[in-house]
Amino acid sequence: MKNTEIDIEISEVGPRDGLQSIADIMPTEAKKAWLRAEAAAGVREIEVGSFVPASILPQLADTAELVRYARTIDGLCVAVLVPNLRGAQAALDAGAHKISLPFSVSESHCQKNVNRSHQQMFNEVERIIAAIDASSGPRPHFEVGLSTAFGCSIEGPIPEAKVVAIAEKLVAAGVDEVGLSDTTGSGNPAQLRRLVKQIWQHCGRDKLNGVHLHNTRGQGLANALAAVDLGLTTIDSSLGGIGGCPAAPGASGNIVTEDLVFMLEAMGLRTGIDIEKLIAVRELLHAALPSTELYGFTANAGLPLGFKA
Amino acid sequence: MKNTEIDIEISEVGPRDGLQSIADIMPTEAKKAWLRAEAAAGVREIEVGSFVPASILPQLADTAELVRYARTIDGLCVAVLVPNLRGAQAALDAGAHKISLPFSVSESHCQKNVNRSHQQMFNEVERIIAAIDASSGPRPHFEVGLSTAFGCSIEGPIPEAKVVAIAEKLVAAGVDEVGLSDTTGSGNPAQLRRLVKQIWQHCGRDKLNGVHLHNTRGQGLANALAAVDLGLTTIDSSLGGIGGCPAAPGASGNIVTEDLVFMLEAMGLRTGIDIEKLIAVRELLHAALPSTELYGFTANAGLPLGFKA
Repeated sequence: MKNTEIDIEISEVGPRDGLQSIADIMPTEAKKAWLRAEAAAGVREIEVGSFVPASILPQLADTAELVRYARTIDGLCVAVLVPNLRGAQAALDAGAHKISLPFSVSESHCQKNVNRSHQQMFNEVERIIAAIDASSGPRPHFEVGLSTAFGCSIEGPIPEAKVVAIAEKLVAAGVDEVGLSDTTGSGNPAQLRRLVKQIWQHCGRDKLNGVHLHNTRGQGLANALAAVDLGLTTIDSSLGGIGGCPAAPGASGNIVTEDLVFMLEAMGLRTGIDIEKLIAVRELLHAALPSTELYGFTANAGLPLGFKA
Repeated sequence: MKNTEIDIEISEVGPRDGLQSIADIMPTEAKKAWLRAEAAAGVREIEVGSFVPASILPQLADTAELVRYARTIDGLCVAVLVPNLRGAQAALDAGAHKISLPFSVSESHCQKNVNRSHQQMFNEVERIIAAIDASSGPRPHFEVGLSTAFGCSIEGPIPEAKVVAIAEKLVAAGVDEVGLSDTTGSGNPAQLRRLVKQIWQHCGRDKLNGVHLHNTRGQGLANALAAVDLGLTTIDSSLGGIGGCPAAPGASGNIVTEDLVFMLEAMGLRTGIDIEKLIAVRELLHAALPSTELYGFTANAGLPLGFKA
């Protein structure tokens, strides 16, 4: 679903990572309108939900319906998060284009988040790959996100060699790609550069293309700049910066899609997104979730006088 | 006042650029306590005020007293803004270590801000240099800040050649240094890189060492990262991100000192600042200006578990 006319792919994760920490249930029709509006603004990849049990995250209970709906939006890459094989099977059944599994490099965080050891996670990865291989439909892209790669709120700093070793094992197991996730918003640009270069060196240049960064300590855009400077081509972000990770205490705030698109377009990096249309989508989100605070600076300040993307 | 034990000099501009847009007058004793506390946290340069008429900015009416007081703080570089020769003379009389004059590259903004044409500004620069030469005290460092270098809220985009031409003329006139100021928070990292390289090429590598960035559109830290990556060594910022430019409509928000120090120290760049002590200074600011909103993410999120600067 990559388009050669753009330089950087913005993967909108608001409908998943944003909504999962918001208690007020957003109606399915409002979510569909959100997906439509972002796609119409030029966003080409959206993580529409997560196949977790509805009893754990009632907000995301309509994920299968959203995947099927999003597939009707022309040109949109429909991504979805899965915590395990059961979720991956649901994603295959619904026809997601991209399936992402979070794998916490911190084993304590892994246990807390999905109640599995690292060995159990590797086993699950192998089962998911087998399920994808056995599936009759078009083959989805299978990415494993290296959660807590920049630090953990339970274990603290994570040795870089550990991140790289897990990435290597995952690539050897046959995942299409790994992603670096700053789950706790602890990361810094120097660390990001070291991790990306080491993973490229050990796993191959094509096995890591994207990062999922949080803005917990205000470092989101600086880390995103380091990522695009290196040549990474996919950055996750969330409209209005909503969301965070419920299993990482104190972690909140995705990168704000609007501010990220402003940075990239101002730098001359094409995202394919019409920033004014994108900013207008905030109104839709605010109308559906009036008590949810929307973050971001560009929407409030407006575009600079004479700004041309 | 540069210290070889640090990599990046943080120039705290809160007492000037922060306070100048805040109506509630901060008592002089509270300002002194602020200067003391930041210096004790390791901040080595503070812009303590501006020598503008008290009728225009009553908040900064105590600048002379603050310069004299700050000079008693061991190791602190005492910087001050001046709008003209009269201000520069006051700065010399008070004994400032560093005198900064803002020169708006946008002539419309220049007229609006200090009611002078570019030619009148160049004449004023020559008079200030003559006054410094004629002064009997220790010679202060004289920097001219290129305001609106990244874009103007009246004129829109500013041609880069115009920024470079004015920088060249100022250096030829004898200023010690020029600085790049993103007065309207319109700048992006690619533009910053182009501007810095061109000014270095035309004016000499030692004539531009610092940037004054605003966070109006959330780009502050990304631009600061681009600056330090290039090798710039001084970044202006404001505790709690207070302030902005009163003559640029919609412009608000300096870079947050706390978030900047977190980024740099996490990257292994030494600022000489104890970040926990720095964050504690927010309480002093909040107590003195209870109705002023303090910005920044690091102070709210706390430092990452196991973080070592």
